[in-house]
Amino acid sequence: MIGWRARLGLMVPSINVNMEKEFNLMAPVGVSIHYARLPVTEGILSKVKQLEKSNLDRLRESMPKAAIELQHAEVDVIGSGFTAGGWILGLEGHMKLIKSIEHQVGVPIVTATIAVMEAMQKLGMRRIVVATPYVETSNQRGREFLKANGFDILAIETIGELAHTVSSGRIYRFAKKLFVPEADGIFISCTDFPSLEILQALENDIGKPVVSSNQALMWKMLQVARVHESMKGFGSLLAT
Amino acid sequence: MIGWRARLGLMVPSINVNMEKEFNLMAPVGVSIHYARLPVTEGILSKVKQLEKSNLDRLRESMPKAAIELQHAEVDVIGSGFTAGGWILGLEGHMKLIKSIEHQVGVPIVTATIAVMEAMQKLGMRRIVVATPYVETSNQRGREFLKANGFDILAIETIGELAHTVSSGRIYRFAKKLFVPEADGIFISCTDFPSLEILQALENDIGKPVVSSNQALMWKMLQVARVHESMKGFGSLLAT
Amino acid sequence: MIGWRARLGLMVPSINVNMEKEFNLMAPVGVSIHYARLPVTEGILSKVKQLEKSNLDRLRESMPKAAIELQHAEVDVIGSGFTAGGWILGLEGHMKLIKSIEHQVGVPIVTATIAVMEAMQKLGMRRIVVATPYVETSNQRGREFLKANGFDILAIETIGELAHTVSSGRIYRFAKKLFVPEADGIFISCTDFPSLEILQALENDIGKPVVSSNQALMWKMLQVARVHESMKGFGSLLAT
Amino acid sequence: MIGWRARLGLMVPSINVNMEKEFNLMAPVGVSIHYARLPVTEGILSKVKQLEKSNLDRLRESMPKAAIELQHAEVDVIGSGFTAGGWILGLEGHMKLIKSIEHQVGVPIVTATIAVMEAMQKLGMRRIVVATPYVETSNQRGREFLKANGFDILAIETIGELAHTVSSGRIYRFAKKLFVPEADGIFISCTDFPSLEILQALENDIGKPVVSSNQALMWKMLQVARVHESMKGFGSLLAT
Amino acid sequence: MIGWRARLGLMVPSINVNMEKEFNLMAPVGVSIHYARLPVTEGILSKVKQLEKSNLDRLRESMPKAAIELQHAEVDVIGSGFTAGGWILGLEGHMKLIKSIEHQVGVPIVTATIAVMEAMQKLGMRRIVVATPYVETSNQRGREFLKANGFDILAIETIGELAHTVSSGRIYRFAKKLFVPEADGIFISCTDFPSLEILQALENDIGKPVVSSNQALMWKMLQVARVHESMKGFGSLLAT
Amino acid sequence: MIGWRARLGLMVPSINVNMEKEFNLMAPVGVSIHYARLPVTEGILSKVKQLEKSNLDRLRESMPKAAIELQHAEVDVIGSGFTAGGWILGLEGHMKLIKSIEHQVGVPIVTATIAVMEAMQKLGMRRIVVATPYVETSNQRGREFLKANGFDILAIETIGELAHTVSSGRIYRFAKKLFVPEADGIFISCTDFPSLEILQALENDIGKPVVSSNQALMWKMLQVARVHESMKGFGSLLAT
Amino acid sequence: MIGWRARLGLMVPSINVNMEKEFNLMAPVGVSIHYARLPVTEGILSKVKQLEKSNLDRLRESMPKAAIELQHAEVDVIGSGFTAGGWILGLEGHMKLIKSIEHQVGVPIVTATIAVMEAMQKLGMRRIVVATPYVETSNQRGREFLKANGFDILAIETIGELAHTVSSGRIYRFAKKLFVPEADGIFISCTDFPSLEILQALENDIGKPVVSSNQALMWKMLQVARVHESMKGFGSLLAT
Amino acid sequence: MIGWRARLGLMVPSINVNMEKEFNLMAPVGVSIHYARLPVTEGILSKVKQLEKSNLDRLRESMPKAAIELQHAEVDVIGSGFTAGGWILGLEGHMKLIKSIEHQVGVPIVTATIAVMEAMQKLGMRRIVVATPYVETSNQRGREFLKANGFDILAIETIGELAHTVSSGRIYRFAKKLFVPEADGIFISCTDFPSLEILQALENDIGKPVVSSNQALMWKMLQVARVHESMKGFGSLLAT
Repeated sequence: MIGWRARLGLMVPSINVNMEKEFNLMAPVGVSIHYARLPVTEGILSKVKQLEKSNLDRLRESMPKAAIELQHAEVDVIGSGFTAGGWILGLEGHMKLIKSIEHQVGVPIVTATIAVMEAMQKLGMRRIVVATPYVETSNQRGREFLKANGFDILAIETIGELAHTVSSGRIYRFAKKLFVPEADGIFISCTDFPSLEILQALENDIGKPVVSSNQALMWKMLQVARVHESMKGFGSLLAT
Repeated sequence: MIGWRARLGLMVPSINVNMEKEFNLMAPVGVSIHYARLPVTEGILSKVKQLEKSNLDRLRESMPKAAIELQHAEVDVIGSGFTAGGWILGLEGHMKLIKSIEHQVGVPIVTATIAVMEAMQKLGMRRIVVATPYVETSNQRGREFLKANGFDILAIETIGELAHTVSSGRIYRFAKKLFVPEADGIFISCTDFPSLEILQALENDIGKPVVSSNQALMWKMLQVARVHESMKGFGSLLAT
Repeated sequence: MIGWRARLGLMVPSINVNMEKEFNLMAPVGVSIHYARLPVTEGILSKVKQLEKSNLDRLRESMPKAAIELQHAEVDVIGSGFTAGGWILGLEGHMKLIKSIEHQVGVPIVTATIAVMEAMQKLGMRRIVVATPYVETSNQRGREFLKANGFDILAIETIGELAHTVSSGRIYRFAKKLFVPEADGIFISCTDFPSLEILQALENDIGKPVVSSNQALMWKMLQVARVHESMKGFGSLLAT
Repeated sequence: MIGWRARLGLMVPSINVNMEKEFNLMAPVGVSIHYARLPVTEGILSKVKQLEKSNLDRLRESMPKAAIELQHAEVDVIGSGFTAGGWILGLEGHMKLIKSIEHQVGVPIVTATIAVMEAMQKLGMRRIVVATPYVETSNQRGREFLKANGFDILAIETIGELAHTVSSGRIYRFAKKLFVPEADGIFISCTDFPSLEILQALENDIGKPVVSSNQALMWKMLQVARVHESMKGFGSLLAT
Repeated sequence: MIGWRARLGLMVPSINVNMEKEFNLMAPVGVSIHYARLPVTEGILSKVKQLEKSNLDRLRESMPKAAIELQHAEVDVIGSGFTAGGWILGLEGHMKLIKSIEHQVGVPIVTATIAVMEAMQKLGMRRIVVATPYVETSNQRGREFLKANGFDILAIETIGELAHTVSSGRIYRFAKKLFVPEADGIFISCTDFPSLEILQALENDIGKPVVSSNQALMWKMLQVARVHESMKGFGSLLAT
Repeated sequence: MIGWRARLGLMVPSINVNMEKEFNLMAPVGVSIHYARLPVTEGILSKVKQLEKSNLDRLRESMPKAAIELQHAEVDVIGSGFTAGGWILGLEGHMKLIKSIEHQVGVPIVTATIAVMEAMQKLGMRRIVVATPYVETSNQRGREFLKANGFDILAIETIGELAHTVSSGRIYRFAKKLFVPEADGIFISCTDFPSLEILQALENDIGKPVVSSNQALMWKMLQVARVHESMKGFGSLLAT
Repeated sequence: MIGWRARLGLMVPSINVNMEKEFNLMAPVGVSIHYARLPVTEGILSKVKQLEKSNLDRLRESMPKAAIELQHAEVDVIGSGFTAGGWILGLEGHMKLIKSIEHQVGVPIVTATIAVMEAMQKLGMRRIVVATPYVETSNQRGREFLKANGFDILAIETIGELAHTVSSGRIYRFAKKLFVPEADGIFISCTDFPSLEILQALENDIGKPVVSSNQALMWKMLQVARVHESMKGFGSLLAT
Repeated sequence: MIGWRARLGLMVPSINVNMEKEFNLMAPVGVSIHYARLPVTEGILSKVKQLEKSNLDRLRESMPKAAIELQHAEVDVIGSGFTAGGWILGLEGHMKLIKSIEHQVGVPIVTATIAVMEAMQKLGMRRIVVATPYVETSNQRGREFLKANGFDILAIETIGELAHTVSSGRIYRFAKKLFVPEADGIFISCTDFPSLEILQALENDIGKPVVSSNQALMWKMLQVARVHESMKGFGSLLAT
């Protein structure tokens, strides 16, 4: 039986090429992962205003479709690959949108937006630095969203390039430089930002936990699917 | 760089849970695979007439959308996970549909329908037995389509169950029983039929080549993407 | 010397194809396993009344023969592959039958019926859910037998198919669904029910111990043969 | 599916502890092995006359029972673990007995007696030396049986001890000493004689093929079950 | 004894961070590699004229110093990490400079400039495409130098970025796109251009040999040191 | 990105052939090592006076050059491979020279001279025995330098041969013989003295910590580069 | 350097074929083992009186010769492979003989006779059972010797066969049967008795320590040579 | 059974510490090696005349004793570790001595002196260079002996140090330097000269076969014991 332990469904933004790679690396034995794509092309780096307007409307339309395509595969939980996307509507608006889709498809839905916050709470990270590939407007929005939800943002900065073209090593350098000793850890935002391979080294080297969008989303999805597997090499969140 | 050697895009029928698993197993080093989903729920086993009518219309609409979602990921080639689906329109109609989508997205498109025929020609398989999970109507259509394209169908039979719920071992038993010595090999049809793990054992045991939908589709996609990798354990097609 | 550490003899019900596979996987270094077969064909799923009448009579005759065949191989202990079979006569009747055979062959005899209860006691499982492939009548009998021996049965349900045709993954799904948080663990009954491969994942995921017929029988046989080996991957019972 | 590629059934003489061990080592992927036991205690070393009389009668009775127990497990082929046993009745009598059981159970039956002769023919072994653990009477009978079937016996000798108590290393020494350069190879008779581990070294060192009862029986059973797997380390017979 | 089979000395341009990495990966057992650095900072991408003037003068001064530092380590051969650097003076001038240093230190000196040409001759590559990270002026100079030495340059193009910041995957993509079927192979120039990891995949995929500066330099240095080791995974040049 | 976690630059004395070997063995994942060479030929064994005079002058000139060559490679920290060299000027003079170079290149500089003292302090080693390959004059100087910095030298002895020609095993024997139970550990001085492979065995066998020049230098450089990796097999210093 | 960590010399009784095998398996990294042979043929099983008379005289002559042959190899310690041999003279006589040889060769000498007693003391074994391959007279002598040195012999029994012809598995069975719960552990005597492979399983299964002649001799020799290595799989004595 | 395939006995010169190490590395599965020591201390490097006089007399006495000690271990063949020793008496005298010992012990005896010549003949080496650790007198004697037996000695030279203190790497360097292209291969003489680890690299690098004393002695002993095993990494002699 394919996905005997759990079938996880992922809604992947269409320009994203990193999620399939990182989720396949993290999949525990018996867990299969299935993908649907959401049409999102307006550049996360360059066209922020359109993102808010046209994209949000389009997502309201395309997300339920993608969720239903995954429901056809009888997945146990659906994950949404948007992190910053969730910051636009605020927590309440975000939850309302998610609940509405959950209602349509009858499958629990998890978003990177929420998962990273729960992961940070679990790891005792309140004062954080945030490394992103976003435009400044998005970073500003993230600062407000996270602050509104109880986090203290010591710094939030962008690497300023198309997320998945950045090598993991450069993300390590960028995030480590951003880190300050008084922070409780680092949050590396964006599911298209390939940081999985350097999470453990970064944790070792700063001596504090590191949370990334995909790592936190996987952690939350496994939790919802009631799968408990200790993994090595992807940071302390997945090692417990 | 993710998918530095090639990025392959796959259009996965929404109820299919086997393609992600088998393609991940076959992926050569440097080749990444990205997925979009096509909404197809009408039962392949039980609702054939609707399949032809409503589904074909829906696919004409949803396939270009899925292809565009994969084009966003800058894939080098797109593969369509339908084998029997291509039999409905006949070769000419099938090619016309594919060419029209190729035209829209500007990326070469390969279908399982065509790939299996090219694979069998390469392996010298003209007289074949065909193992499927389809309803009888589909099998009948397959017999005609393949015959029209130069193959001699010694037998075509269905296992009569939902494709991905059948274990690989039972597919081995079913296909081996169907085989007759005068055949040039076996064709196991349907991308949702989990036969990858038993292809090599089956080839060893009947002493003739075996082609499956996913194996042939991968072979053809790598060829289009100009990737040449000899793989062991998935039958002679991918071993050369 | 073959089986220098211990030779284990197993009486395998003739339709059972799972015991040889699971016991070979669990065998510690230096322990050999030898098999005799007991003729039992009347369907465990469909012909319960006959089972009680004709089968019990036949077993009274065939079990001593099988035990003697294993005694010829100079085994240190003999295991009986019946779990539900032992429920028919009640504990007293069951023990009387076993003692009588032990008396004839001069080799200690262990049954799955008894082993699973001792294993659950060791693991502190009093309130349990029970997953089986049996007919309802057998489940009802099991409920009474286990209750009479001090267990609290929160649920006992059948998957309703011929035991060894069910994939391990489906047994995982079935047992996990049956589980309720107030239970102390899960008991998966039937030596022909292929659950060994998923025991550890199931324990991880529910956070409570899981006992299966073959696992408990192996545990008890090693104990009688005075072999103490900590094994990984087959649940907490064999890991200590 | 257990034994998806093939299920092999073995009838094991009750005092034999070597067959389960050697067959488990040789089993190809996807092939499961199931065992039934035949009550045979009269000493192969010391009570030859009784063997012929009482044992043959008993076997005529117990072999069909054992075969039926294996048929219950839906095996694809049944192997009989007697090599020398088949020499008593002569080829014709032996085949008649086998055919009669085959008729009762509807499953093909293979015997070590026949398998070793076919294996030697395949390997071009006509002039042979034979190493056994049998009493002299049995060896004499083997000499006549093999000669009657076209083999030239340059030597047949017994190691003079209970077969499975002899270490593999001593069998190597014994057989190598027996070998003469003009022989085409060595035949090591008896399924309870643990020679599997030294077959390859012995072949390397004498530079000629070596056939053993279990190796040849496995080879023949896989052939009947239409499984073709090249194995290393068990002599040239299974390496092709 | 360190470097018992051979000690190789490398003169590494000071901005180069790729040579140590790739040479360590290629080092055969018993071969140690020792490094001296040459001060070269003027940007290979942006300051070509100065490179010719000031750098050449500086190199005439610093190369003998570096060679002597390596002679102190008693190396068997010294390799110079410049490829394009050798194009400036023409073959005659280049050889004159090398011979003069060889004369001073008494150790044979090999340059990437010469090694790549000998490697291509060995592999039968006369008509080639050339992938570089150089400024156009350097490429133009390379075209003339290689042409003057008997090669037919079908194309020579630059990726236009600082060599060692380009990922191996992007070099694969760049070189493969440059390739034309009528070429005998690809030459990837520059010792700071990290192509070692993709050489084999590129050869497989274009079906023709690929030569890189570091691979050819290692090949030539081992030849001079009389070390013959067949290596897998670094292209056909080192596999023979 | 090459050296994504850290780039380490090493200034290697020109006659030294051991540093490249030992540092490559100790390099953690993501850490690249780059080398520049310092011209030092006057025999450490035989020409001590000249070492002080001419060499110090020459080093004052060549060290800044080498440091700049490494700065070109954008290293995070530079290590100097001199241990005994630092003893000549005394701590103050040594630090002044290092600070002056640091000032010129803008990269932190670490020396074996300092690193070994910090390592011993961390491990609680105050009373030590010292094994070296130096001339007696150097040993005498080391005794004074270390004493002046708070260490109690129970013994300091030379093996009396050119450092890198001594096998690791002989260093083990030499150091172990030098050890006295009242010492807190052993310090094996000289970066050209190949002791890395026997550090762990020596620690196990004397039951006290062992510090070597290269091990301590690597430890200190990783600390400055903020890389924290626990390594096995190189003594307790790098295992924490 | 061969045996850089330690060179161990062993005096092997000439009929013994087990010591080389077991000591090679136990040798830690850097420890080499060298062998000299002592002419001892009089059967340990059958000719006890001669052993005492002629053999002791011969040993007094041959042991110093063998010790000197090992001293030529510059070993750090010499081990004598006699266990029961030491019982003849009593502790005082035994030590006097050893001291006299030590005096002649100037190398510390360790005997199995003494080593096993020290090992048992370390493991807290006072009440013991003893498994041997000796004649009854030797066992009787062992009982007295061990008693005189503070041990309480609950049982001492012989397997009654030439030591090295007994398989390890049979030694396991024999010793386990001899064991009684009130014993502190088992002592398996004789360096020619191949028990190394089953020591760990036996310890696991009886839950008490097991000491053998070769294991204890190795432990003591490493102690004298000041080598401390924790080994797995040879019992708790060598695991600390 | 220890040494079930063959038991090899070796007579090791007492100062030799290399034979045990190299023979253990070359031992095929099932082959055990047993050692006796021959008292030989007079320095092979410095006391040649005494070697001839006193040592030869002593060896005539001690070799039969050692051979008998190995015969007690029931070895299949005995190897003598002297290469140059055999040159003193000439071929006839050497063979006469060996035959006389063979006669006393009844076990075939092989000497390095003879084995190396047979090995070279097998490999087609007639014109050879010879690398030794001997004094010049011995080399001169070797030149004459080998010439008398049909070999053409292009060069024979000594490394001039105590054999086993030389590292393998230095033997590689020494022998490679001695090699001339017109030679058919290299012969590295002396069983105490640790060349086994570099034989294969040396063969690769000169492109001709290399024979060493221990390698040739093992090859010959396995031939006599009728063991045929192809080994990798020890030169072409043992690879066939």
